Amino acid sequence: MKDVRVLEIKESVFADNDKQADELRKELKEKGVFLLNLMSSPGSGKTTTLTRTIEALRDTLKIGVMEADIDSDVDAHTIAKTGAKAIQLHTGGMCHLDAGMTRQGIEGLEVGDVELAILENVGNLVCPAEFDTGASKNAMILSVPEGHDKPLKYPLMFSICDVVLINKIDVMPYFDFDMEKCEEYIAMRNPNAKVIPICAKTGEGMEEWTNWLKAQVNEWNA
Amino acid sequence: MKDVRVLEIKESVFADNDKQADELRKELKEKGVFLLNLMSSPGSGKTTTLTRTIEALRDTLKIGVMEADIDSDVDAHTIAKTGAKAIQLHTGGMCHLDAGMTRQGIEGLEVGDVELAILENVGNLVCPAEFDTGASKNAMILSVPEGHDKPLKYPLMFSICDVVLINKIDVMPYFDFDMEKCEEYIAMRNPNAKVIPICAKTGEGMEEWTNWLKAQVNEWNA
Repeated sequence: MKDVRVLEIKESVFADNDKQADELRKELKEKGVFLLNLMSSPGSGKTTTLTRTIEALRDTLKIGVMEADIDSDVDAHTIAKTGAKAIQLHTGGMCHLDAGMTRQGIEGLEVGDVELAILENVGNLVCPAEFDTGASKNAMILSVPEGHDKPLKYPLMFSICDVVLINKIDVMPYFDFDMEKCEEYIAMRNPNAKVIPICAKTGEGMEEWTNWLKAQVNEWNA
Repeated sequence: MKDVRVLEIKESVFADNDKQADELRKELKEKGVFLLNLMSSPGSGKTTTLTRTIEALRDTLKIGVMEADIDSDVDAHTIAKTGAKAIQLHTGGMCHLDAGMTRQGIEGLEVGDVELAILENVGNLVCPAEFDTGASKNAMILSVPEGHDKPLKYPLMFSICDVVLINKIDVMPYFDFDMEKCEEYIAMRNPNAKVIPICAKTGEGMEEWTNWLKAQVNEWNA
């Protein structure tokens, strides 16, 4: 499996992460690159959602993906099969990416003519929320089996995300998941967050999500 | 809801966490307190598993529970309903507990005649694995919807756990979860880890788990 480059990224040396993030965001805007920071718990379906997203958008947008993981490169191989430019970032045990680490990834990806760059962050609802990566927008996935009470327990993550995808809605009948309560709790944390129920496996809701994303990319480059 | 004490614990000031953890472990052993550190992703079923565990063991053992969360106290209230001594620890945004923070929790719980103290760690597969809490044994829950590849992606967590509970086996038919592969991946990380498939909701497998736990507590006090 040598089709994917693996980049060992180093912990950032910058004390002022917010400043580094703003600079990266500005540079990406000048280059016409929209950066989406995708976050979630382990196993909520980030890679499957990404695969479906790429399939829907690859004829419209040039897409590049950075797969961040502590170890392994299975996700980058899965993404590479879609034909999108993919790179695996190894965080060396780090539980999140900051702006300096994201910059290393962007340089490794060699964005060139990429219009939509996606960072699949480390599976973790806590630490990634604390570090601005320089992304144009933050997205998160909450999957039905995790439960509707997560906005109560991981407030910061929900408050910094522009969009929350509720994934695995196909298994709703087998779990005690209250969609209305979930939306209410998300609104408590972030009244501006867009909530889109999806099933990446069956494709349900994916059109609303990819339309939203496409509109964001167009707005970024307007 | 005033039946549960909420303790705001502070980040530990100790540089040498391993030493602090060993000291706490030694003190707890002298007091006859077995401390279980229970870890998992958000939403894998830690609190439901704990509720069932307490119901099975409360006539045999005096149990005290520390529920660690960044925010909210819903879990401690759920546990308090079982009749077990329960305390909520607020980590102030911290993504894990170290030995110093665990000590604050143990003091807040006022263990007294408690024989089995359980720390429900912050829902996170990364950071909690890096800090010895002083526990007698480490346990983790991996739930079926998260996928069987998690030992590949979060190696440290699996390598430090004495027991891995595979929860939510009732929904196996609705997910692409390969139990054999999962056990193989866990063994790669930690050949000594005990693996127990359970369903906390239906009670399946819970007897094997509570018997294992009871044996550990007895051995600790032998």
